Amino acid sequence: MEIDLSNIKVVGFDADDTLWVNETYFREAEEKFASLLEKYETKNQIDQELFKMEIKNLELYGYGIKGFMLSMIESALQLSNNNVSQRTITEILNLGKEMLTRPVELLEGVEEVLQTLENKYRLIVLTKGDLLDQERKLEKSGLSKYFHHVEVLSDKKEDNYKNLLEHLEIQVGEFLMIGNSLKSDVLPIINIGAQAVHIPFHTTWEHEVVGPEEHNNDHLTLNNIKDILKYLS
Amino acid sequence: MEIDLSNIKVVGFDADDTLWVNETYFREAEEKFASLLEKYETKNQIDQELFKMEIKNLELYGYGIKGFMLSMIESALQLSNNNVSQRTITEILNLGKEMLTRPVELLEGVEEVLQTLENKYRLIVLTKGDLLDQERKLEKSGLSKYFHHVEVLSDKKEDNYKNLLEHLEIQVGEFLMIGNSLKSDVLPIINIGAQAVHIPFHTTWEHEVVGPEEHNNDHLTLNNIKDILKYLS
Repeated sequence: MEIDLSNIKVVGFDADDTLWVNETYFREAEEKFASLLEKYETKNQIDQELFKMEIKNLELYGYGIKGFMLSMIESALQLSNNNVSQRTITEILNLGKEMLTRPVELLEGVEEVLQTLENKYRLIVLTKGDLLDQERKLEKSGLSKYFHHVEVLSDKKEDNYKNLLEHLEIQVGEFLMIGNSLKSDVLPIINIGAQAVHIPFHTTWEHEVVGPEEHNNDHLTLNNIKDILKYLS
Repeated sequence: MEIDLSNIKVVGFDADDTLWVNETYFREAEEKFASLLEKYETKNQIDQELFKMEIKNLELYGYGIKGFMLSMIESALQLSNNNVSQRTITEILNLGKEMLTRPVELLEGVEEVLQTLENKYRLIVLTKGDLLDQERKLEKSGLSKYFHHVEVLSDKKEDNYKNLLEHLEIQVGEFLMIGNSLKSDVLPIINIGAQAVHIPFHTTWEHEVVGPEEHNNDHLTLNNIKDILKYLS
Protein backbone atom coordinates (compact mmCIF):
# COMPACT_ATOMS: atom_id res chain seq x y z
CA MET A 1 0.00 0.00 0.00
CA GLU A 2 1.42 3.31 -1.12
CA ILE A 3 0.37 6.27 1.01
CA ASP A 4 1.23 9.70 -0.34
CA LEU A 5 0.58 12.59 1.98
CA SER A 6 2.71 15.13 0.15
CA ASN A 7 -0.29 17.23 -0.94
CA ILE A 8 -1.74 17.56 2.54
CA LYS A 9 -2.06 21.12 3.82
CA VAL A 10 -4.76 20.77 6.46
CA VAL A 11 -4.88 18.10 9.17
CA GLY A 12 -8.13 17.49 11.02
CA PHE A 13 -8.09 15.77 14.39
CA ASP A 14 -10.96 14.01 16.04
CA ALA A 15 -10.95 14.88 19.75
CA ASP A 16 -12.50 12.19 21.99
CA ASP A 17 -10.20 9.14 22.19
CA THR A 18 -7.85 10.69 19.63
CA LEU A 19 -6.51 13.68 21.57
CA TRP A 20 -7.80 12.70 25.01
CA VAL A 21 -9.44 9.84 26.92
CA ASN A 22 -13.22 9.72 26.66
CA GLU A 23 -14.76 6.30 26.03
CA THR A 24 -13.08 4.91 29.15
CA TYR A 25 -15.16 7.30 31.26
CA PHE A 26 -18.37 6.09 29.63
CA ARG A 27 -17.35 2.48 30.30
CA GLU A 28 -16.67 3.36 33.95
CA ALA A 29 -20.03 5.12 34.24
CA GLU A 30 -21.74 2.07 32.75
CA GLU A 31 -20.04 -0.13 35.35
CA LYS A 32 -21.30 2.11 38.14
CA PHE A 33 -24.74 2.27 36.59
CA ALA A 34 -24.88 -1.54 36.51
CA SER A 35 -23.88 -1.74 40.19
CA LEU A 36 -26.59 0.72 41.13
CA LEU A 37 -29.18 -1.53 39.48
CA GLU A 38 -27.69 -4.93 40.31
CA LYS A 39 -30.66 -6.06 42.34
CA TYR A 40 -32.95 -5.81 39.30
CA GLU A 41 -30.99 -7.42 36.49
CA THR A 42 -27.72 -9.07 35.48
CA LYS A 43 -24.88 -6.77 34.46
CA ASN A 44 -25.06 -8.09 30.94
CA GLN A 45 -28.78 -7.37 30.67
CA ILE A 46 -28.33 -3.87 32.13
CA ASP A 47 -25.54 -3.08 29.64
CA GLN A 48 -27.66 -4.24 26.74
CA GLU A 49 -30.77 -2.35 27.81
CA LEU A 50 -28.84 0.87 28.37
CA PHE A 51 -27.24 0.57 24.95
CA LYS A 52 -30.64 -0.02 23.33
CA MET A 53 -32.03 3.02 25.13
CA GLU A 54 -29.12 5.18 23.97
CA ILE A 55 -29.64 4.13 20.35
CA LYS A 56 -33.39 4.67 20.62
CA ASN A 57 -32.78 8.20 21.95
CA LEU A 58 -29.83 9.07 19.72
CA GLU A 59 -31.86 10.84 17.06
CA LEU A 60 -33.58 12.92 19.73
CA TYR A 61 -30.68 13.67 22.06
CA GLY A 62 -27.62 13.40 19.81
CA TYR A 63 -24.17 12.51 21.14
CA GLY A 64 -22.85 13.58 24.50
CA ILE A 65 -23.08 13.22 28.25
CA LYS A 66 -26.43 14.94 28.85
CA GLY A 67 -28.22 12.55 26.52
CA PHE A 68 -26.38 9.67 28.19
CA MET A 69 -27.62 10.86 31.60
CA LEU A 70 -31.21 11.03 30.37
CA SER A 71 -30.94 7.56 28.84
CA MET A 72 -29.50 6.14 32.07
CA ILE A 73 -32.45 7.56 34.03
CA GLU A 74 -34.98 6.19 31.55
CA SER A 75 -33.26 2.78 31.54
CA ALA A 76 -33.18 2.68 35.32
CA LEU A 77 -36.93 3.25 35.47
CA GLN A 78 -37.56 0.60 32.86
CA LEU A 79 -35.12 -2.04 34.14
CA SER A 80 -36.49 -1.73 37.69
CA ASN A 81 -40.10 -1.71 36.58
CA ASN A 82 -40.42 1.75 38.13
CA ASN A 83 -38.97 0.54 41.42
CA VAL A 84 -35.62 2.30 41.24
CA SER A 85 -35.23 4.52 44.29
CA GLN A 86 -35.18 8.30 44.16
CA ARG A 87 -31.76 8.14 45.76
CA THR A 88 -30.46 6.05 42.86
CA ILE A 89 -31.74 8.59 40.37
CA THR A 90 -29.80 11.25 42.25
CA GLU A 91 -26.74 9.03 42.05
CA ILE A 92 -27.19 8.70 38.30
CA LEU A 93 -27.36 12.49 38.01
CA ASN A 94 -24.15 12.70 40.03
CA LEU A 95 -22.45 10.12 37.81
CA GLY A 96 -23.13 12.35 34.81
CA LYS A 97 -22.06 15.52 36.58
CA GLU A 98 -18.77 13.87 37.51
CA MET A 99 -18.20 13.00 33.86
CA LEU A 100 -18.84 16.62 32.88
CA THR A 101 -16.33 17.95 35.39
CA ARG A 102 -13.51 15.43 34.98
CA PRO A 103 -10.08 16.77 34.12
CA VAL A 104 -8.92 16.13 30.58
CA GLU A 105 -6.35 13.37 30.19
CA LEU A 106 -4.26 13.79 27.03
CA LEU A 107 -3.26 10.68 25.12
CA GLU A 108 0.42 9.87 24.81
CA GLY A 109 2.26 11.71 22.06
CA VAL A 110 -0.52 14.18 21.26
CA GLU A 111 1.23 17.34 22.36
CA GLU A 112 4.47 16.36 20.60
CA VAL A 113 2.59 15.71 17.34
CA LEU A 114 0.73 19.03 17.48
CA GLN A 115 3.93 20.94 18.28
CA THR A 116 5.73 19.34 15.37
CA LEU A 117 2.94 19.79 12.84
CA GLU A 118 1.65 23.25 13.74
CA ASN A 119 4.21 25.15 11.66
CA LYS A 120 3.81 23.10 8.52
CA TYR A 121 0.07 22.45 8.42
CA ARG A 122 -3.20 24.12 9.29
CA LEU A 123 -4.52 22.06 12.19
CA ILE A 124 -8.21 21.84 12.97
CA VAL A 125 -10.39 19.90 15.41
CA LEU A 126 -13.50 18.15 14.11
CA THR A 127 -15.54 16.58 16.83
CA LYS A 128 -19.12 15.59 17.45
CA GLY A 129 -21.04 15.72 20.66
CA ASP A 130 -22.17 18.40 22.99
CA LEU A 131 -21.01 21.90 22.00
CA LEU A 132 -20.37 23.28 25.49
CA ASP A 133 -18.78 20.07 26.76
CA GLN A 134 -16.40 19.84 23.80
CA GLU A 135 -15.41 23.52 24.09
CA ARG A 136 -14.79 23.01 27.78
CA LYS A 137 -12.60 19.95 27.19
CA LEU A 138 -10.55 21.74 24.57
CA GLU A 139 -10.07 24.63 26.98
CA LYS A 140 -9.05 22.31 29.81
CA SER A 141 -6.74 20.34 27.52
CA GLY A 142 -4.50 23.36 26.92
CA LEU A 143 -4.39 22.40 23.23
CA SER A 144 -6.45 25.30 21.80
CA LYS A 145 -3.33 27.21 20.82
CA TYR A 146 -2.42 24.65 18.18
CA PHE A 147 -5.65 24.87 16.23
CA HIS A 148 -6.77 27.30 13.55
CA HIS A 149 -10.34 26.19 13.83
CA VAL A 150 -12.53 24.02 16.00
CA GLU A 151 -15.78 22.63 14.71
CA VAL A 152 -18.30 20.70 16.75
CA LEU A 153 -20.57 18.79 14.38
CA SER A 154 -23.90 17.22 15.28
CA ASP A 155 -22.79 14.15 13.32
CA LYS A 156 -19.85 13.00 11.22
CA LYS A 157 -21.37 11.81 8.00
CA GLU A 158 -20.11 12.55 4.48
CA ASP A 159 -22.34 15.60 4.13
CA ASN A 160 -21.19 17.08 7.42
CA TYR A 161 -17.59 16.83 6.24
CA LYS A 162 -18.32 18.09 2.73
CA ASN A 163 -20.13 21.17 4.00
CA LEU A 164 -17.42 21.94 6.48
CA LEU A 165 -14.54 21.63 4.02
CA GLU A 166 -16.44 23.85 1.60
CA HIS A 167 -17.13 26.39 4.31
CA LEU A 168 -13.49 26.44 5.40
CA GLU A 169 -12.36 26.51 1.75
CA ILE A 170 -10.29 23.37 2.08
CA GLN A 171 -9.67 21.22 -1.04
CA VAL A 172 -10.45 17.54 -0.40
CA GLY A 173 -7.09 16.55 -1.92
CA GLU A 174 -5.30 18.66 0.68
CA PHE A 175 -7.14 17.30 3.70
CA LEU A 176 -6.11 14.53 6.06
CA MET A 177 -8.30 13.41 8.96
CA ILE A 178 -6.88 11.60 11.99
CA GLY A 179 -9.17 9.76 14.37
CA ASN A 180 -10.01 6.65 16.33
CA SER A 181 -13.36 5.82 14.76
CA LEU A 182 -13.45 4.01 11.43
CA LYS A 183 -17.14 4.83 11.13
CA SER A 184 -16.92 8.54 11.91
CA ASP A 185 -13.37 9.64 11.17
CA VAL A 186 -12.15 7.37 8.38
CA LEU A 187 -14.81 5.89 6.08
CA PRO A 188 -16.81 9.08 5.33
CA ILE A 189 -13.55 10.97 4.73
CA ILE A 190 -12.32 8.42 2.22
CA ASN A 191 -15.71 8.40 0.55
CA ILE A 192 -15.52 12.14 -0.14
CA GLY A 193 -12.03 11.77 -1.63
CA ALA A 194 -9.87 13.04 1.22
CA GLN A 195 -7.37 10.96 3.19
CA ALA A 196 -7.65 9.49 6.66
CA VAL A 197 -5.46 7.88 9.29
CA HIS A 198 -6.97 5.48 11.77
CA ILE A 199 -5.53 5.34 15.28
CA PRO A 200 -7.60 2.78 17.19
CA PHE A 201 -8.31 3.48 20.84
CA HIS A 202 -8.40 0.44 23.10
CA THR A 203 -12.14 0.73 23.56
CA THR A 204 -14.80 1.73 21.04
CA TRP A 205 -18.46 2.42 21.69
CA GLU A 206 -20.52 -0.38 20.16
CA HIS A 207 -22.41 2.17 18.03
CA GLU A 208 -19.14 3.21 16.36
CA VAL A 209 -18.04 -0.32 15.46
CA VAL A 210 -18.29 -1.21 11.78
CA GLY A 211 -18.53 -4.69 10.34
CA PRO A 212 -15.68 -6.12 8.24
CA GLU A 213 -17.68 -5.65 5.03
CA GLU A 214 -17.64 -1.91 5.58
CA HIS A 215 -13.90 -1.73 6.06
CA ASN A 216 -11.85 -0.01 3.48
CA ASN A 217 -8.16 -0.50 2.98
CA ASP A 218 -7.26 2.87 1.52
CA HIS A 219 -6.03 4.34 4.73
CA LEU A 220 -3.16 4.12 7.16
CA THR A 221 -3.70 2.52 10.54
CA LEU A 222 -1.25 3.53 13.24
CA ASN A 223 -0.76 2.32 16.77
CA ASN A 224 0.24 5.63 18.23
CA ILE A 225 -0.46 9.15 17.06
CA LYS A 226 3.30 9.85 17.13
CA ASP A 227 3.77 7.49 14.20
CA ILE A 228 2.10 10.06 11.95
CA LEU A 229 5.32 12.07 12.12
CA LYS A 230 7.01 9.45 9.92
CA TYR A 231 4.57 10.37 7.16
CA LEU A 232 4.00 14.08 7.68
CA SER A 233 7.31 15.48 8.88
CA MET B 1 -32.06 59.06 17.61
CA GLU B 2 -30.49 58.69 14.20
CA ILE B 3 -30.06 55.13 13.01
CA ASP B 4 -27.95 54.66 9.90
CA LEU B 5 -27.91 51.18 8.49
CA SER B 6 -26.53 52.10 5.07
CA ASN B 7 -23.18 50.33 5.65
CA ILE B 8 -24.75 47.04 6.66
CA LYS B 9 -23.82 44.08 4.47
CA VAL B 10 -24.45 41.14 6.80
CA VAL B 11 -27.55 40.63 8.92
CA GLY B 12 -27.45 38.14 11.78
CA PHE B 13 -30.67 36.71 13.17
CA ASP B 14 -31.16 35.15 16.54
CA ALA B 15 -33.40 32.08 16.15
CA ASP B 16 -35.43 31.22 19.28
CA ASP B 17 -38.20 33.80 19.79
CA THR B 18 -36.89 35.88 16.88
CA LEU B 19 -37.58 33.53 13.95
CA TRP B 20 -39.81 31.04 15.75
CA VAL B 21 -41.64 30.46 19.04
CA ASN B 22 -39.53 28.94 21.81
CA GLU B 23 -39.87 30.49 25.25
CA THR B 24 -43.62 29.83 25.23
CA TYR B 25 -42.90 26.09 25.16
CA PHE B 26 -40.62 26.37 28.18
CA ARG B 27 -43.33 28.32 30.04
CA GLU B 28 -45.86 25.60 29.17
CA ALA B 29 -43.47 22.88 30.33
CA GLU B 30 -42.94 24.77 33.60
CA GLU B 31 -46.71 24.91 34.12
CA LYS B 32 -46.98 21.17 33.61
CA PHE B 33 -43.98 20.55 35.84
CA ALA B 34 -45.64 22.59 38.61
CA SER B 35 -48.87 20.57 38.28
CA LEU B 36 -46.94 17.33 38.53
CA LEU B 37 -45.48 18.49 41.84
CA GLU B 38 -48.44 20.42 43.23
CA LYS B 39 -48.84 18.19 46.25
CA TYR B 40 -45.38 19.12 47.50
CA GLU B 41 -45.17 22.89 47.07
CA THR B 42 -46.95 26.02 45.84
CA LYS B 43 -46.65 26.83 42.15
CA ASN B 44 -44.67 29.93 42.98
CA GLN B 45 -42.18 28.00 45.08
CA ILE B 46 -41.81 25.31 42.41
CA ASP B 47 -41.14 27.95 39.73
CA GLN B 48 -38.51 29.60 41.86
CA GLU B 49 -36.75 26.38 42.80
CA LEU B 50 -36.66 25.16 39.22
CA PHE B 51 -35.22 28.48 38.07
CA LYS B 52 -32.55 28.33 40.79
CA MET B 53 -31.67 24.79 39.76
CA GLU B 54 -31.36 25.79 36.11
CA ILE B 55 -29.02 28.65 36.98
CA LYS B 56 -26.97 26.42 39.28
CA ASN B 57 -26.59 23.89 36.46
CA LEU B 58 -26.15 26.37 33.61
CA GLU B 59 -22.36 26.33 33.65
CA LEU B 60 -22.37 22.54 33.57
CA TYR B 61 -25.22 21.87 31.13
CA GLY B 62 -25.36 25.02 29.00
CA TYR B 63 -28.53 26.17 27.26
CA GLY B 64 -31.11 23.86 25.79
CA ILE B 65 -33.82 21.32 26.44
CA LYS B 66 -31.67 18.41 27.65
CA GLY B 67 -30.19 20.49 30.46
CA PHE B 68 -33.70 21.73 31.27
CA MET B 69 -34.90 18.12 31.54
CA LEU B 70 -32.06 17.20 33.88
CA SER B 71 -32.75 20.27 36.03
CA MET B 72 -36.46 19.42 36.21
CA ILE B 73 -35.63 15.91 37.44
CA GLU B 74 -33.17 17.21 40.04
CA SER B 75 -35.68 19.83 41.20
CA ALA B 76 -38.45 17.28 41.47
CA LEU B 77 -36.30 15.10 43.72
CA GLN B 78 -35.37 18.07 45.86
CA LEU B 79 -38.80 19.72 46.07
CA SER B 80 -40.45 16.42 47.05
CA ASN B 81 -37.75 15.49 49.52
CA ASN B 82 -37.07 12.39 47.41
CA ASN B 83 -40.73 11.42 47.45
CA VAL B 84 -41.54 12.17 43.83
CA SER B 85 -42.88 9.03 42.19
CA GLN B 86 -41.03 7.12 39.49
CA ARG B 87 -44.04 7.68 37.27
CA THR B 88 -43.67 11.45 37.64
CA ILE B 89 -40.02 11.23 36.60
CA THR B 90 -41.12 9.39 33.49
CA GLU B 91 -43.64 12.18 32.85
CA ILE B 92 -40.89 14.76 33.16
CA LEU B 93 -38.82 12.86 30.60
CA ASN B 94 -41.85 12.81 28.31
CA LEU B 95 -42.38 16.56 28.77
CA GLY B 96 -38.86 17.16 27.50
CA LYS B 97 -39.18 14.71 24.63
CA GLU B 98 -42.36 16.48 23.51
CA MET B 99 -40.46 19.77 23.49
CA LEU B 100 -37.74 18.23 21.33
CA THR B 101 -40.20 16.91 18.78
CA ARG B 102 -42.59 19.88 18.51
CA PRO B 103 -43.16 21.37 15.10
CA VAL B 104 -41.56 24.76 14.51
CA GLU B 105 -43.94 27.73 14.59
CA LEU B 106 -42.58 30.70 12.62
CA LEU B 107 -43.21 34.17 13.97
CA GLU B 108 -45.30 36.56 11.90
CA GLY B 109 -43.45 38.37 9.15
CA VAL B 110 -40.27 36.29 9.33
CA GLU B 111 -40.50 34.65 5.93
CA GLU B 112 -41.40 37.95 4.22
CA VAL B 113 -38.41 39.67 5.81
CA LEU B 114 -35.98 36.94 4.81
CA GLN B 115 -37.33 36.86 1.25
CA THR B 116 -36.94 40.61 0.92
CA LEU B 117 -33.48 40.83 2.41
CA GLU B 118 -31.81 37.72 0.96
CA ASN B 119 -30.80 39.35 -2.31
CA LYS B 120 -29.31 42.48 -0.77
CA TYR B 121 -27.59 41.12 2.32
CA ARG B 122 -25.72 38.09 3.50
CA LEU B 123 -28.04 36.56 6.08
CA ILE B 124 -26.75 34.39 8.90
CA VAL B 125 -28.25 32.71 11.96
CA LEU B 126 -26.51 33.09 15.31
CA THR B 127 -28.12 31.07 18.03
CA LYS B 128 -27.13 29.47 21.28
CA GLY B 129 -28.33 26.25 22.77
CA ASP B 130 -28.14 22.65 21.83
CA LEU B 131 -26.42 22.02 18.49
CA LEU B 132 -28.57 19.13 17.28
CA ASP B 133 -31.81 20.71 18.49
CA GLN B 134 -31.08 24.03 16.77
CA GLU B 135 -30.08 22.32 13.51
CA ARG B 136 -33.27 20.28 13.64
CA LYS B 137 -35.43 23.36 14.21
CA LEU B 138 -33.81 25.21 11.33
CA GLU B 139 -34.42 22.19 9.11
CA LYS B 140 -38.06 21.93 10.20
CA SER B 141 -38.57 25.68 9.79
CA GLY B 142 -37.91 25.53 6.04
CA LEU B 143 -35.79 28.69 6.41
CA SER B 144 -32.34 27.16 5.78
CA LYS B 145 -32.38 28.29 2.16
CA TYR B 146 -32.18 31.96 3.14
CA PHE B 147 -28.99 31.68 5.16
CA HIS B 148 -25.36 31.74 4.07
CA HIS B 149 -24.20 30.46 7.41
CA VAL B 150 -25.62 29.07 10.62
CA GLU B 151 -23.65 29.21 13.82
CA VAL B 152 -24.68 27.62 17.09
CA LEU B 153 -22.71 29.24 19.89
CA SER B 154 -22.31 27.89 23.40
CA ASP B 155 -22.94 31.43 24.65
CA LYS B 156 -23.54 34.90 23.24
CA LYS B 157 -21.00 37.07 24.95
CA GLU B 158 -18.82 39.73 23.34
CA ASP B 159 -15.95 37.29 22.75
CA ASN B 160 -18.21 34.72 21.09
CA TYR B 161 -19.39 37.38 18.64
CA LYS B 162 -15.92 38.83 18.06
CA ASN B 163 -14.42 35.43 17.25
CA LEU B 164 -17.26 34.56 14.96
CA LEU B 165 -17.16 37.81 12.96
CA GLU B 166 -13.42 37.41 12.61
CA HIS B 167 -13.79 33.81 11.49
CA LEU B 168 -16.47 34.75 8.93
CA GLU B 169 -14.43 37.79 7.86
CA ILE B 170 -17.21 40.24 8.63
CA GLN B 171 -16.32 43.85 9.49
CA VAL B 172 -18.09 45.00 12.68
CA GLY B 173 -19.25 48.18 10.89
CA GLU B 174 -21.05 46.08 8.31
CA PHE B 175 -22.85 43.82 10.76
CA LEU B 176 -26.37 44.14 12.12
CA MET B 177 -27.81 41.68 14.64
CA ILE B 178 -31.56 41.19 15.09
CA GLY B 179 -32.90 39.44 18.15
CA ASN B 180 -35.32 39.33 21.04
CA SER B 181 -32.82 39.30 23.91
CA LEU B 182 -31.25 42.57 25.04
CA LYS B 183 -28.74 40.60 27.05
CA SER B 184 -27.65 38.17 24.35
CA ASP B 185 -28.47 39.77 21.01
CA VAL B 186 -28.20 43.51 21.56
CA LEU B 187 -25.85 44.67 24.34
CA PRO B 188 -22.78 42.54 23.49
CA ILE B 189 -23.19 43.47 19.81
CA ILE B 190 -23.24 47.18 20.56
CA ASN B 191 -20.28 46.78 22.88
CA ILE B 192 -18.14 45.34 20.09
CA GLY B 193 -19.08 48.22 17.78
CA ALA B 194 -21.65 46.55 15.53
CA GLN B 195 -25.35 47.46 15.35
CA ALA B 196 -28.36 45.69 16.79
CA VAL B 197 -32.13 45.75 16.52
CA HIS B 198 -34.21 44.58 19.44
CA ILE B 199 -37.54 42.88 18.72
CA PRO B 200 -39.01 41.93 22.09
CA PHE B 201 -40.91 38.67 22.34
CA HIS B 202 -43.91 38.66 24.67
CA THR B 203 -42.12 36.44 27.15
CA THR B 204 -38.46 36.41 28.17
CA TRP B 205 -36.69 33.86 30.34
CA GLU B 206 -35.79 35.47 33.66
CA HIS B 207 -32.11 34.71 33.07
CA GLU B 208 -32.16 36.85 29.92
CA VAL B 209 -33.77 39.88 31.57
CA VAL B 210 -31.43 42.83 32.15
CA GLY B 211 -31.91 45.59 34.70
CA PRO B 212 -32.57 49.18 33.56
CA GLU B 213 -29.00 50.22 34.44
CA GLU B 214 -27.67 47.82 31.82
CA HIS B 215 -29.89 49.18 29.08
CA ASN B 216 -28.32 51.04 26.25
CA ASN B 217 -30.14 53.38 23.95
CA ASP B 218 -28.01 53.02 20.84
CA HIS B 219 -30.25 50.54 19.14
CA LEU B 220 -33.59 50.34 17.42
CA THR B 221 -36.47 48.57 19.12
CA LEU B 222 -39.19 47.30 16.83
CA ASN B 223 -42.52 45.68 17.56
CA ASN B 224 -42.51 43.35 14.62
CA ILE B 225 -39.67 41.96 12.57
CA LYS B 226 -41.38 43.30 9.42
CA ASP B 227 -40.64 46.85 10.57
CA ILE B 228 -36.96 46.25 9.80
CA LEU B 229 -37.85 46.57 6.11
CA LYS B 230 -38.38 50.32 6.61
CA TYR B 231 -34.72 50.61 7.53
CA LEU B 232 -33.07 47.97 5.37
CA SER B 233 -35.03 47.91 2.13
